Amino acid sequence: MTYCIGIRLNAGLVFLSDSRTNAGIDQISTFRKMMVYEKADDRFMVLLSAGNLSISQSVREILQLEKIDRGPDQPALTIWNAESMFDAVRVLGAAVRRVYQQDGPSLKAAGIDFNASMIFGGQIKGEAMRMFLVYSAGNFIEATRETCFFQVGESKYGKPILDRVLTPSTPLDEAAKCALVSMDSTLKSNLSVGLPLDLLVYREGSFRTEQMVCIDDQNPYFQMIHSTWGQRLREVFEGIADPVWDGSAAEHPLQASARYAPMGKISKPEDRIV
Amino acid sequence: MTYCIGIRLNAGLVFLSDSRTNAGIDQISTFRKMMVYEKADDRFMVLLSAGNLSISQSVREILQLEKIDRGPDQPALTIWNAESMFDAVRVLGAAVRRVYQQDGPSLKAAGIDFNASMIFGGQIKGEAMRMFLVYSAGNFIEATRETCFFQVGESKYGKPILDRVLTPSTPLDEAAKCALVSMDSTLKSNLSVGLPLDLLVYREGSFRTEQMVCIDDQNPYFQMIHSTWGQRLREVFEGIADPVWDGSAAEHPLQASARYAPMGKISKPEDRIV
Repeated sequence: MTYCIGIRLNAGLVFLSDSRTNAGIDQISTFRKMMVYEKADDRFMVLLSAGNLSISQSVREILQLEKIDRGPDQPALTIWNAESMFDAVRVLGAAVRRVYQQDGPSLKAAGIDFNASMIFGGQIKGEAMRMFLVYSAGNFIEATRETCFFQVGESKYGKPILDRVLTPSTPLDEAAKCALVSMDSTLKSNLSVGLPLDLLVYREGSFRTEQMVCIDDQNPYFQMIHSTWGQRLREVFEGIADPVWDGSAAEHPLQASARYAPMGKISKPEDRIV
Repeated sequence: MTYCIGIRLNAGLVFLSDSRTNAGIDQISTFRKMMVYEKADDRFMVLLSAGNLSISQSVREILQLEKIDRGPDQPALTIWNAESMFDAVRVLGAAVRRVYQQDGPSLKAAGIDFNASMIFGGQIKGEAMRMFLVYSAGNFIEATRETCFFQVGESKYGKPILDRVLTPSTPLDEAAKCALVSMDSTLKSNLSVGLPLDLLVYREGSFRTEQMVCIDDQNPYFQMIHSTWGQRLREVFEGIADPVWDGSAAEHPLQASARYAPMGKISKPEDRIV
């Protein structure tokens, strides 16, 4: 499996990906799932991918060369000459569809879904930062103020903390910390998500990779997150009062509501024992 | 969808279920998913069910009457005369298979999976408490010291807190609190899990329902959990240091490891602009 997070904030973008792939539980490998496409002072784009590895590797390879024809009067559209991230993600959609044309029928014949999902975000000079979630049909949706992050892969274990913390005004380092906590919960619960992690933090308007790190089990910051978060979570849990039954004197009694009937219950009368 | 939790502790058993069912996103109903089978001072059993509602309702109904033939010398085996929870869960498996015989072919013809999973736990006099996870084929597994809880339905959002807190020696009220926190995270992340909740706490050797409550949005204890947990989680999160880049003076710098090569990166040389 895979777990990748992309976050679009007012201050910049945060990308985090794991590096485990598996074909069944007994075939585990390490493949990086983050790719940076960068032209200094002009454009900066990051692709995170989940799903079938052969599809996402092909898409990644094709993307840097993919062209969308714009007629005789204009050069073909590429990620390197697109004037907006919207045009750039259209090129990514075209790359996905090219791989589908090439491999889709054979995969289908083998009973394998054409399964791929990607997060694609970045900034092109003259435009604000944008981030997209791209589906296996090559269509896509864009992150907004209301929904400022996307996840692909094993997303459920790590979603509650993102839901509770992230807003567009969250500072970049705090969002990076939040992504790492989310990843830590996912690593604990799903063996098919694994280290090392790739973390990239992009500052708005910088148009280059300034903060990028590969995090393995020796990384001091991630070690601290890993040991501290679980410990503090248990402390908070212990700090919340246990329920008090029938305790009308308690501040928060666990009392039954009169609005619902008791749940189903079948009692066996003593005189009807088989 | 559905979310149910069953926990087997040294001190007793904890059962928690939500009550939302949906057929598509636009057809939401309230159905209770907990059923108690009780004969005072002799046996106490609880069934939690997830999956196709028509299947689980049929299983629930059939279970109280289901018999497994044991030959001419013995009365047929039922949940009311079983001498062990293992025998009782075999009766439940037989009930699931009976529903499969009745409805399976028609469901298959309609393209609907025979989808049901259940938690079945309790105690029969003369035996320790036991808890089982029953699959749609009528087969089952049993909770052990190492894995002391089962979940059915939408299990992922709420699993991290169970993983971090529960052990067989956890006190009953603390385990009930843990189940409610797990349910609260799930309610926040999946609209198809909903109130009211049924909570039942069984004390070892009591053979009766002593602590059972239906929890709706007016319940003071659940309101407290709901407002406190998210708030404290954010406080803990804020209390953990943000990463410091290139900060060799920091206690836990977010430094790159030398053990892995940098991630993939494609830079567009200035002289090759299309």
